[in-house]
Amino acid sequence: MPLPLQPYKGARDFYPPDKRLQKYMFGKWREVAERYGYEEYDAPILESLEIYQAKTGDEIVNEQTYSFEDRGKRQVVIRPEMTPTVSRMVAARRQELSYPLRWYSIPNLWRYERPQRGRLREHWQLNVDIFGIADSGAEYEIIVMVDDIFKTFGADSKMYEIRLNSRQLIDQALINYIGFSSNESRALSHLIDRKAKMDKSKFISAIDDLVSPKARASGKVEKLLALLDIDNLDNLPAMLKLHDSALDLKKMLRQLNQAGIKNTLFDISLMRGFDYYTGIVFEVYDRHPENNRSMLGGGRYDGLVGAFGVTPLPTVGFGWGDVTLANFLELHHLLPQIKTETEIYAVLLDDLEKSQAPIAKLRQLGLDLAVDWSNRKLGDQIKTANKKSIPYLLVIGRNELKNNKFTLKHLESSQEITGSLSELANHVIEERNNLKNKQ
Amino acid sequence: MPLPLQPYKGARDFYPPDKRLQKYMFGKWREVAERYGYEEYDAPILESLEIYQAKTGDEIVNEQTYSFEDRGKRQVVIRPEMTPTVSRMVAARRQELSYPLRWYSIPNLWRYERPQRGRLREHWQLNVDIFGIADSGAEYEIIVMVDDIFKTFGADSKMYEIRLNSRQLIDQALINYIGFSSNESRALSHLIDRKAKMDKSKFISAIDDLVSPKARASGKVEKLLALLDIDNLDNLPAMLKLHDSALDLKKMLRQLNQAGIKNTLFDISLMRGFDYYTGIVFEVYDRHPENNRSMLGGGRYDGLVGAFGVTPLPTVGFGWGDVTLANFLELHHLLPQIKTETEIYAVLLDDLEKSQAPIAKLRQLGLDLAVDWSNRKLGDQIKTANKKSIPYLLVIGRNELKNNKFTLKHLESSQEITGSLSELANHVIEERNNLKNKQ
Repeated sequence: MPLPLQPYKGARDFYPPDKRLQKYMFGKWREVAERYGYEEYDAPILESLEIYQAKTGDEIVNEQTYSFEDRGKRQVVIRPEMTPTVSRMVAARRQELSYPLRWYSIPNLWRYERPQRGRLREHWQLNVDIFGIADSGAEYEIIVMVDDIFKTFGADSKMYEIRLNSRQLIDQALINYIGFSSNESRALSHLIDRKAKMDKSKFISAIDDLVSPKARASGKVEKLLALLDIDNLDNLPAMLKLHDSALDLKKMLRQLNQAGIKNTLFDISLMRGFDYYTGIVFEVYDRHPENNRSMLGGGRYDGLVGAFGVTPLPTVGFGWGDVTLANFLELHHLLPQIKTETEIYAVLLDDLEKSQAPIAKLRQLGLDLAVDWSNRKLGDQIKTANKKSIPYLLVIGRNELKNNKFTLKHLESSQEITGSLSELANHVIEERNNLKNKQ
Repeated sequence: MPLPLQPYKGARDFYPPDKRLQKYMFGKWREVAERYGYEEYDAPILESLEIYQAKTGDEIVNEQTYSFEDRGKRQVVIRPEMTPTVSRMVAARRQELSYPLRWYSIPNLWRYERPQRGRLREHWQLNVDIFGIADSGAEYEIIVMVDDIFKTFGADSKMYEIRLNSRQLIDQALINYIGFSSNESRALSHLIDRKAKMDKSKFISAIDDLVSPKARASGKVEKLLALLDIDNLDNLPAMLKLHDSALDLKKMLRQLNQAGIKNTLFDISLMRGFDYYTGIVFEVYDRHPENNRSMLGGGRYDGLVGAFGVTPLPTVGFGWGDVTLANFLELHHLLPQIKTETEIYAVLLDDLEKSQAPIAKLRQLGLDLAVDWSNRKLGDQIKTANKKSIPYLLVIGRNELKNNKFTLKHLESSQEITGSLSELANHVIEERNNLKNKQ
C-alpha cells in the first residue's frame, strides 16, 4: 500500500511560501509584543491531563483533547490552549519573578474537532499575558496592544471592532438583578455565549430548558431577553448601570477613545467560552460581511495562578490564532507578497572546485546564495532560478575566475552589474536595505 | 491534591532567559541556512504511524515513539524525527517543485526514552536537506554549511571534528571483502554503530552472537576487527581502497581541506542509526574531554522520497539538536549574555491617563517600553526595573507632561539624558545599533 502523501487530517503542511507568510505574521506579533515590554516564553506541547481538568471548560477536556496514556502510564494531553501552562509556569516561580510580569508565546495548540473554515485541528496562537496588575491599566494596555497589532498589519479601524463586556456585570445581572441561581447563571452564560450562532426561537427554548419552572413562571426569562437587547451601558437598569463593573467598562471605553480607538462597543452577550474569566472580557470581530466573526479574545482571569496552590495573582491575557489572522489579512487584501530570501543563483560553468572560493566569499559578505551544482545547459539553470524567483544570476566560468571580475544579472530587468565580489555584494545589500525601508 | 508545577517529565519549560538563548541559537541556524539558499518549511507535529514503519530503525517505532489512537481510530505519532515528514512533503509535490531543492526546518521532536544529559524526551532539531543532486557537491555543500554554522557560533576548529564514512564502503567491506551475508551485514552495522559505547570484550562477543558459526570459524570476525582498526583511507585493503565509495570519500576530504576545513577524519565505524542512508555519512564530534560525543550527523539517503511511490530523488541532509548545541556552547564558553529586549521602564508619577500619549509616541518611534502601572514608591518601581535588567528608566510626572521634556536615566551608569521624545528615541536607537554592530 502506498504511503500517505497528505498531512494528518485537519493539520497543515507549511511549504516554503506558507512558512514565509507564517514568519511574517509571527514577526509582526513579536515586534509589537516586545514594543510593549513583553518577553517570550515557551513550554512542552505535552502537559499532564490534571491541569486542564482544574479550570477549563469541560467540553474541551472530555471531547476535544488529544489525550492519551504514555508508556509510563501518565495521563498526558497535547495542549489545547496555553493558559493553564503559563499559569503553571508562573506559579512554579511565584516568588522569584518580579511584577508586573509581561509574557508572550506563540504555541502550537491541538483540538480534536471537525475541521472547518477558520478552525483546524491545530493552530498557532499568540498568547499574551500580564500578571500582577489588579488595576484596569492591564486591560487597557492589552487592548491598545491588540489594536496596535492590527494597525501594524496595515488594517484600519473600519475593518474590525473591539467588543467588551464584564463577567462581573453578567453575574450581577443574572444573579442579583434577575434572580437566577448561580448554577442557572453559569449554564445561561455558556448558552448566551452561543447566542449569535442560534436562531432566536431555538435560543429561547434552550433558555426555557435550562431554568427552573419557577423562574420561567416569574417572568425572569423575559427580563433576561430584554436585558440582552441592550447595546449601550447608559441604557442598563439603574442597579446595573451604577455597579462598579459597569463603571469600569465605561471608563475603559472612554480611555480607549482617548487613545484614538473608537471602533469599540459594549456587547452584553459576550461571555468567552472558558469559566476562568473574572472581570472585563473582550473580543475582536471582523467587520467584513463575509467573515463577520470573532477573531480573538481575552480578558481578566485572576484565579488561575492561585489554583496551583500559590498566592493568587491578578492576570489579564488574550489569545489570537494564526488561521483567523490569515483569513482576515487575506479578505482585506493585507497579505504582502513575500519572496524567497535567496538573492543569488550561482551557475558554475567550468571548474566546480575553483568556483567555491568566490561563492564562500559572497556568503561571508552576507549574501544569500544558492548553487545549482548540475551540469545542465545554462538556459535550464536560468529557468530554475526564475522558477524559484531568485532575483540575481551569477555565472562563474573560466574568465571570471581568471580576471576576478564577476557579473550579476538581474533576471527580471536583465540589467547587469560587473565588478569585484565586494562591489557586487555592496550593490545587493544596498538594494536589500532599500526594500526593507520601503516595507 | 495540588496541581503539578513542573513540566512533563523529560521536557523543558522555557522561561524568558531560556527562550532568548533558544532564539539566539535558532537565529544563527536560520541565518546560515538561508545564506546557502535553503528555505524554511514546517509540518504538523502529528503524523500517521505508517510513514515511520516504512524506513526508520525499528527500535524507534516500537519502543520509543509517542504513538496513540486518535478519537477517529487513526494511528498517530508525535514525530520522533523529521526525515519521513520532509520526504512525504516533497513526494506530494514531486513534479511541481524545482531542483535542486533546498529546505530546512526547526521542528520539535519527541522520543520516549530515559532522560539523561544531552538527551531529553523532546528537543528542537535543525533539519537541512538538499534534494535532486546525485553528485557529491551536495555532501560538500552540506558539510561546509555545518562548519560555517560552528564558526558563526564562535567555535574554532579545535573544538570539534567532522568524521566521515560511506554506507556503500561498509556494504562493500562487510559483504564483498569479508563475505558476510546481507542480513549479517545489516545487523553488524547496527552493532558497530554502538561500538564506542561498549567495552571491547562485550563488543566482540556481541559480534560472535550475530554471525553464523561458519563465519566465526572461517576467521571473518578477525578480519572485521582488523578492518575496524583502520583510521586512514590509504591503509584500506586494495579492493576497498580502489572502490568508488572510498575514492569519493578521499575526494571529499581533499575538497574540504581546500575549503579550509581540516578537522576531518575517516571513521570506518561511523554508521548512523537509521537504515535509510545510502552513501556518504558524517557526524560532528565535540572534542572537549568532558563531552567527547557525537553532536549531529547526516548523510545521503537517496531512497526515502521514492518510498512514497514517486520517482526517487537523490537527497542529502542532516539534523542538529538544540540540547547538544547548547551543551557544546556552554562547555566551550561560547554562550553570549542575552538581555531582555525591553529598553525602557516607565514609571507614572501623577496622571496615568495623560501619561499614555508620550508612551504611545515612544513606541511609535520604535522603542520597546514597559509601564509599571503600580502606585508603589518610586524606589520600589526602580528595583523592579533593575531586577528585570531593563537599561533605562523614564519617569513621567506633572512637570514632564507640562514641559514636554523627558529624562531617561541609564540605571547602571546613572547617566541622564533630557530632551524631547524624538531626541530620546534617537539616542536609544543609536545605542541599540552600536550594540548590534559589535555582536
